Amino acid sequence: MVNLDAILPQLKWNEAGLLPAVIQDERTHDVLMVAWMNADALRLTVETGETHFWSRSRRELWHKGRTSGNTQVVTGIWIDCDADTVLVKVNPAGPACHTGNVSCFYRTLEQFENE
Amino acid sequence: MVNLDAILPQLKWNEAGLLPAVIQDERTHDVLMVAWMNADALRLTVETGETHFWSRSRRELWHKGRTSGNTQVVTGIWIDCDADTVLVKVNPAGPACHTGNVSCFYRTLEQFENE
Repeated sequence: MVNLDAILPQLKWNEAGLLPAVIQDERTHDVLMVAWMNADALRLTVETGETHFWSRSRRELWHKGRTSGNTQVVTGIWIDCDADTVLVKVNPAGPACHTGNVSCFYRTLEQFENE
Repeated sequence: MVNLDAILPQLKWNEAGLLPAVIQDERTHDVLMVAWMNADALRLTVETGETHFWSRSRRELWHKGRTSGNTQVVTGIWIDCDADTVLVKVNPAGPACHTGNVSCFYRTLEQFENE
């Protein structure tokens, strides 16, 4: 287990105390979603081995899959060069997107235009 | 060519007029970097076929690779379900990271702790 008390203060949290987290399927390499983590969400993600986020709209911690069952088991966490973004590789139990799509990035710009 | 005049107003820009952009290598599927785009950066990315970003620190448009030569040729742009994040697939001419690493996500949380 990493020493989060040492790591958390070294990350470059934004003015709201958040970092963007890119979630990638470990096996298919699909980028599944981007969400936000505060320090508590990153700590819970590390400690439980499942992704947790901060919901900016609901203003609450969010255990991904708690209601849908589509949890994401963490296989690795990477930090970028600026220490202001994390990349979390996961084995997902089901679709990442609330629409039922495997990935939240299910439309190209062209498809979005034609909706 | 997509009709950006129709699309840009439908995207959910943040309070600073920006969207996070995840850059993924089309061939290796590596997540290379996360940067920010304003409307001008997204327009230039679509129109030139190479990634452009908004540098929050320098407060200027940034044509990735203009000085390093490590440009990124765009092969597709995806929008997420909330229309507040883009995923750009690219063929990179060289490393994405200013450190010389292929990806800005070159360290795990454990490696970051032990630096």
